[in-house]
Amino acid sequence: MKGFEPVEPARAYLLMNHGPTVLVTSAHAGEQNVMAAAWAMPLDFDPPKVVVVIDKRTRTRELVEASGEFTLCVPPREQAESVLRVGSRSGRELDKFQAEGLSAVPGTRVGAPGVAGSLACLECRVIAEPHNQQQYDLFIGEVAAAWADPQAFSGNRWHFSSDARRSVHYVAGGAFFATGESFDVTAKE
Amino acid sequence: MKGFEPVEPARAYLLMNHGPTVLVTSAHAGEQNVMAAAWAMPLDFDPPKVVVVIDKRTRTRELVEASGEFTLCVPPREQAESVLRVGSRSGRELDKFQAEGLSAVPGTRVGAPGVAGSLACLECRVIAEPHNQQQYDLFIGEVAAAWADPQAFSGNRWHFSSDARRSVHYVAGGAFFATGESFDVTAKE
Repeated sequence: MKGFEPVEPARAYLLMNHGPTVLVTSAHAGEQNVMAAAWAMPLDFDPPKVVVVIDKRTRTRELVEASGEFTLCVPPREQAESVLRVGSRSGRELDKFQAEGLSAVPGTRVGAPGVAGSLACLECRVIAEPHNQQQYDLFIGEVAAAWADPQAFSGNRWHFSSDARRSVHYVAGGAFFATGESFDVTAKE
Repeated sequence: MKGFEPVEPARAYLLMNHGPTVLVTSAHAGEQNVMAAAWAMPLDFDPPKVVVVIDKRTRTRELVEASGEFTLCVPPREQAESVLRVGSRSGRELDKFQAEGLSAVPGTRVGAPGVAGSLACLECRVIAEPHNQQQYDLFIGEVAAAWADPQAFSGNRWHFSSDARRSVHYVAGGAFFATGESFDVTAKE
């Protein structure tokens, strides 16, 4: 994916293990869309899987169900206003990529694009689980390819280069936390 | 729950919306246990639901399946070493509460206890979904009661009082991020 370096599948979970808020992109029949999701997380290591909650009322939901694909992107703090707006407007009303000045980066394994400027992107294929989708709006995806901005993630570790390029964690009402200080602990007593 | 203030059900999602790593407690037939889970998140607002991944090999899994209950607690940074250790040892080998000097706080709605010193606790009843549990180790819980340390969360907002009392986000290999700076953005253009 242009502008990103590949992350090996067994390490893809590292891109979301710390619980960042993500963008969810989708594409079908010439249309593409992007929304925000705080409710997304890894589900398995290898082959890597993720879960994400996609509300029934969203255009993204229709595109994901039609295509069987989505991409999760980890946005940096400098995109937080766009994260809030693409999470509060509908792709039925406007082209959110265009409205936000976000550039779609063509996917390599799925039609759902990456978002230029993301810290990381995970291209996913839906594992059909109709009961979860209907009952809980819960989608399971197998990660077909994972990508990271090498300035933010390389050698299988995050190393944020600036506050503007840290990941974010949405709370509510426009309030976020930035991903904070890194620290290591030991399991030894 | 002793030492905590109640959080209204419709706001319980705020306790986990930013993606912190949690402790998962369980209890059955006089035994109680605690493990760590980075893969946990809200699933619905009201009635509040959560999802958490609980590996088949864990003692927690057996206790959760036997009791139909678990409690998720949001640990502060000052408990990070315990988070790492309860996530890497098995309750089959030792009493992890005792080994870590963690105090169990009796639950009010479920048998699974809270953990003293947590930032927040969510008492949950399993919504039985055998396929998800078997296939994905994925458990869905309805939040029966939610609690927070009022020094860290009140008025439906987080306001961490010190670095030691910030929530944490596990990455891998003993590496965590602390929850970082809070910031607000507006959806207006």
